[in-house]
Amino acid sequence: GGAGPARAAEAPEVTWRLTSSFPKSLDLLYGGAELFARQVGDITGGRFRIDVFPPGDIVPGLQALDAVQAGTVDACQTQLDYAYGKDPAFAIPTAFPFGMNAREQAAYALDGGGNDLTNALLADYGAIGYPAGNTGAQMGGFFRREIKTAGDLAGLRIRAGGLAGRVLQKLGAVPEQTARSEIVAALQGGTLDGVTWVGPYDDAKIDDTGKLQKAAPFYYYPGWWRGGSMIHVAFNKARHDALPEAFRAALRTAALSTHLQVQASYDAANPAALKRLVIAGAELRAFPQDLLEAAFKAAGDVYREISDVNPRFKSMLDAAMAFRADQYLWWQVSEYTFDNFMIRQRARG
Amino acid sequence: GGAGPARAAEAPEVTWRLTSSFPKSLDLLYGGAELFARQVGDITGGRFRIDVFPPGDIVPGLQALDAVQAGTVDACQTQLDYAYGKDPAFAIPTAFPFGMNAREQAAYALDGGGNDLTNALLADYGAIGYPAGNTGAQMGGFFRREIKTAGDLAGLRIRAGGLAGRVLQKLGAVPEQTARSEIVAALQGGTLDGVTWVGPYDDAKIDDTGKLQKAAPFYYYPGWWRGGSMIHVAFNKARHDALPEAFRAALRTAALSTHLQVQASYDAANPAALKRLVIAGAELRAFPQDLLEAAFKAAGDVYREISDVNPRFKSMLDAAMAFRADQYLWWQVSEYTFDNFMIRQRARG
Repeated sequence: GGAGPARAAEAPEVTWRLTSSFPKSLDLLYGGAELFARQVGDITGGRFRIDVFPPGDIVPGLQALDAVQAGTVDACQTQLDYAYGKDPAFAIPTAFPFGMNAREQAAYALDGGGNDLTNALLADYGAIGYPAGNTGAQMGGFFRREIKTAGDLAGLRIRAGGLAGRVLQKLGAVPEQTARSEIVAALQGGTLDGVTWVGPYDDAKIDDTGKLQKAAPFYYYPGWWRGGSMIHVAFNKARHDALPEAFRAALRTAALSTHLQVQASYDAANPAALKRLVIAGAELRAFPQDLLEAAFKAAGDVYREISDVNPRFKSMLDAAMAFRADQYLWWQVSEYTFDNFMIRQRARG
Repeated sequence: GGAGPARAAEAPEVTWRLTSSFPKSLDLLYGGAELFARQVGDITGGRFRIDVFPPGDIVPGLQALDAVQAGTVDACQTQLDYAYGKDPAFAIPTAFPFGMNAREQAAYALDGGGNDLTNALLADYGAIGYPAGNTGAQMGGFFRREIKTAGDLAGLRIRAGGLAGRVLQKLGAVPEQTARSEIVAALQGGTLDGVTWVGPYDDAKIDDTGKLQKAAPFYYYPGWWRGGSMIHVAFNKARHDALPEAFRAALRTAALSTHLQVQASYDAANPAALKRLVIAGAELRAFPQDLLEAAFKAAGDVYREISDVNPRFKSMLDAAMAFRADQYLWWQVSEYTFDNFMIRQRARG
């Protein structure tokens, strides 16, 4: 290779502020924001610096996208479904009940038109974004009592929001919003019967004293409302569009690299965390088949209700559903049968 | 954000040559090399240019790593297991029979120490590399006759190489090296009984006249020798280390971004290709359970034989195996049960 003269004209210095929706204690998520910023800095030789702020430093975590739209910050790292209250369509790029697994979500976003639809939605909020991580399939969470049939959900107060909350409501449960710091006390006191959170690695951090497993020992799977949960970075679109082309490319490339690395971090960290949880008293339970089927049907009802009044939700959901059907057509062949054999061999020791 | 003066000193111009091991006809693989090069160019404002060459333009596809070591080229995109003849340890980062699925492979490479071990091996060949794609779980390939038990493999001539070839040999089959252009004729003439290739998208390109499916209609899964098949980019280490820090960061970040995008491309393209193959006459068949079990046992025997004489292979395999065991401990919980339910619901229509 040869070396030539520098092209100084293309190298301004830019500093951005990025607010994360995730507290530092969720270190793989918050760490994803830091990793994204570090890569952008490194590949631009320090010319494009992104300072990362935890929720609360500039705006609360749930207001990250608002802050991007208002220009209070240049960028955010968030779950787009935190904007579910503005438009349920924001759930589609993050996760929807009985949606896709994490790899299928990435394929849909990058090669199935998904991220273009997401950016068409984000454009209405003055933003543009990319996938930047995935937790993988989440767990169903901790419950005080065993759930043996779908009917056992009746009257249960379960910490859950968005589309999952609406589906659970159709099954007779009561979705609750409970701050993380109050979860253990609420389960102990019986004002909460179950809590959905993330997956083993983050679930193990809700409480490290063993009180959580004592109050709610039954640890359910799968988290059918999040077969994968995608994280995004999003940028103020006007500021993004004003960047030099190389910096815009740096944002996209660093986001996708971050996506792979955050996913890898969760996949690598979850097994040991699952062991720790079980040693601390968590009893693994699969959701009963009739509950999954009732939830699948209820999800369809919720989707129809929202689609009837929200054409954007309908178009985004329909596109994702069509992709999902094709994905599982293929997934059931080699991916699933390979995993099936490996899991059975492992069980034999 | 603010804009300051340029730091011209850090922006040399560099042009590299990258040879791909994959012909342009395998467009998702070769396209991955182009995508990698384009991202490096874009994020460096055109300062770091990588010219991509198909196999044969500079060196044959199987000599990509040799060319990097010799400095004939600066970089390559390859399957590291093409260097299996130099050292069977090169199989571990690409794929090994009954290894890991694609997501587990990425987690192992990036968060389980796998890529560090790969780079320790590559350092002996004057190279350094990163993951840059994955085909996902491969298919078992096309066979002239149905395989109903492990015993049916006896005497079958099957196009397969490396570790898969050794395992098939232990099961009584005869591994063959057959050029792609000769596959259909060999199957028609009966000098070949089966052919392993990649997955539906690439398999559909072996022959688009329908002759392949007529000669060898039984299309088997899963490709137990490649639960995922990782692609790498590798660089001449001395030239890599001499690059400015920002360019080294650009290589790594672009490689990991490419990895995600190549995987997404395969995942998005495989379903339609599978449909086309079936319409063209391919009959899907699962490998019988006793064959999988015999192959699993035979793989263990092969691993012991190589490990006895090759400490590097042993250390790399042992590390990957330990990671695999933990991965499937977790995978069987939420990931697998989520997919299981979705596949069963899909089958009901």
